[in-house]
Amino acid sequence: MTELELIARYFDRPTQRARLGVGDDCALLAPRVGYELAVSTDMLVADRHFFSDVDPAALGWKSLAVNLSDLAAMGARPLAFTLALALPDVDEDWLAPFASGLFECAERFDCELVGGDTTRGPLNICITVFGEVPEGRALRRNGANAGDDVWVSGVVGDAAFALARARAARGAGASDLAIPAAFDDEARAALERPVPCIALGLALRGISTSAIDVSDGLAQDLGHVLAASKVGATLVATCVPVSETLAREGDDVRYRCAFAGGDDYQLCFTAPQAQRVTVEEAGRKSATRVSRIGVIDAHSGLRFVDAHGADFRFPDGLTLQGFDHFA
Amino acid sequence: MTELELIARYFDRPTQRARLGVGDDCALLAPRVGYELAVSTDMLVADRHFFSDVDPAALGWKSLAVNLSDLAAMGARPLAFTLALALPDVDEDWLAPFASGLFECAERFDCELVGGDTTRGPLNICITVFGEVPEGRALRRNGANAGDDVWVSGVVGDAAFALARARAARGAGASDLAIPAAFDDEARAALERPVPCIALGLALRGISTSAIDVSDGLAQDLGHVLAASKVGATLVATCVPVSETLAREGDDVRYRCAFAGGDDYQLCFTAPQAQRVTVEEAGRKSATRVSRIGVIDAHSGLRFVDAHGADFRFPDGLTLQGFDHFA
Repeated sequence: MTELELIARYFDRPTQRARLGVGDDCALLAPRVGYELAVSTDMLVADRHFFSDVDPAALGWKSLAVNLSDLAAMGARPLAFTLALALPDVDEDWLAPFASGLFECAERFDCELVGGDTTRGPLNICITVFGEVPEGRALRRNGANAGDDVWVSGVVGDAAFALARARAARGAGASDLAIPAAFDDEARAALERPVPCIALGLALRGISTSAIDVSDGLAQDLGHVLAASKVGATLVATCVPVSETLAREGDDVRYRCAFAGGDDYQLCFTAPQAQRVTVEEAGRKSATRVSRIGVIDAHSGLRFVDAHGADFRFPDGLTLQGFDHFA
Repeated sequence: MTELELIARYFDRPTQRARLGVGDDCALLAPRVGYELAVSTDMLVADRHFFSDVDPAALGWKSLAVNLSDLAAMGARPLAFTLALALPDVDEDWLAPFASGLFECAERFDCELVGGDTTRGPLNICITVFGEVPEGRALRRNGANAGDDVWVSGVVGDAAFALARARAARGAGASDLAIPAAFDDEARAALERPVPCIALGLALRGISTSAIDVSDGLAQDLGHVLAASKVGATLVATCVPVSETLAREGDDVRYRCAFAGGDDYQLCFTAPQAQRVTVEEAGRKSATRVSRIGVIDAHSGLRFVDAHGADFRFPDGLTLQGFDHFA
């Protein structure tokens, strides 16, 4: 199969909104007047971001979903994406389900493939995604103010829990989490088929003062908001929303997965206290659970308290350092 | 060094035109009213698109240049790019010159880095580039008409010649080209620091009926234009412009590098015969050599003739099949 045949067979679909899609030197997008174009790119590498033998349909879904999550965090509506793909070989038994999972996600979130590149090489998936947001209305990281509530969508920690479980089962990349024998489909779905919070991001425009998507661990990602906004925060540790699966675990596993796990693709955002009802309404409108987990402080640093406001002590030895490729 | 430190040290520069650059979930571009956004992405893989030990400054330049070449082929003006980078390790002796070469190209063509992603993995560089073109004025592949002249910019074949020479010198990836001992800096520069034809692409708006950038071999890339335009072409083989270095070679090496070499990043374009003076003026305005090498035919297929219009016979065994990652 030639490169052109591969593209034609798996990755060339008619576009609806783009002026020009796959098949020329460039794609052509026609931005609407009064809108800014939000752009994000993520590169997924085999054996680092995913197991090489992961279900290719799930990988196709996730490759786009993690990019859409960045659009969600800006309050942007998905428009289009490009796909650059390095493949060790042409394996149609892999390509067909990968493309199928990718387009399933693309159709669900109305985001069309407009171009890309394919080459041979160690498996690598690089998607760049484009969304639109009314001028000046993007949710940025630098707008949190002292006194704002800190919110998080959905539940966090399941993906990290499922990953630790999968790694232990493989005996590969030993985990130092104590992994129980019980396992839960919900946790694996969180890891393999994350659902970006697009509708919530759109509903939070004009309400939220800052937002970020939780990809490297809640504590670390919130830390980026605090740094950009030049503020601190106090979180009520026991308020962090976790699944029933994770709630059954001990404090060590639960808090570590929830605060330092990564791969959640939930939104962590801030909003003035006066907007509590509006935020909850945005959650209902977008069918997304939203939980208030703390408050923004004027002084820097991230602190944890219990439900009574007393300093919260994590189990000994637990670190909240999130994921970093190079640290 | 953490991922954030790496980005801050090497890849975070203030943006001029973008509303928001590196450091949030997305970059924000502010497209001008009346313009379309041209988007292209290229993925470069170690030991496939470049030698792992290539001068990192040259690699930085080339990584962006090959993407800019796609903008040139659409007649788009560069605006911004994202960089996704997989690195086997953090090697500052590599990162510093890579970034330096990358930004040298970015500044030369007024294209700003607005975002990206970094991860560990086998060396892989994926750039997505954005340019603007007035609505409906992009140079596409499907506009060539019977009777149009076929033009090519600059000279072709030097990069392929230099690559074959370099591979032979390494004894790696044996080339079946007969490589002379003599070597020329000009040819190596064409391979390692290609110069995208941005100014020519802009000057050809409204003149050229179709355009493509020559990245996989002149014959193959022109073939894409012919297929998209549903036409054929007759080229005068002896008119193909080559460097003095390549002109000194025998017919086999010269024609093979020129027509089937790849990595040229010149523009191959078509224009009505009535526009010959205007095309030459566009070449002068953009300080780019332009050569008329043939004519578009109503019937499909690519034919070669000599200066007298007689069928041209390439040396025995020479194939004009260009580069394909999967064929």
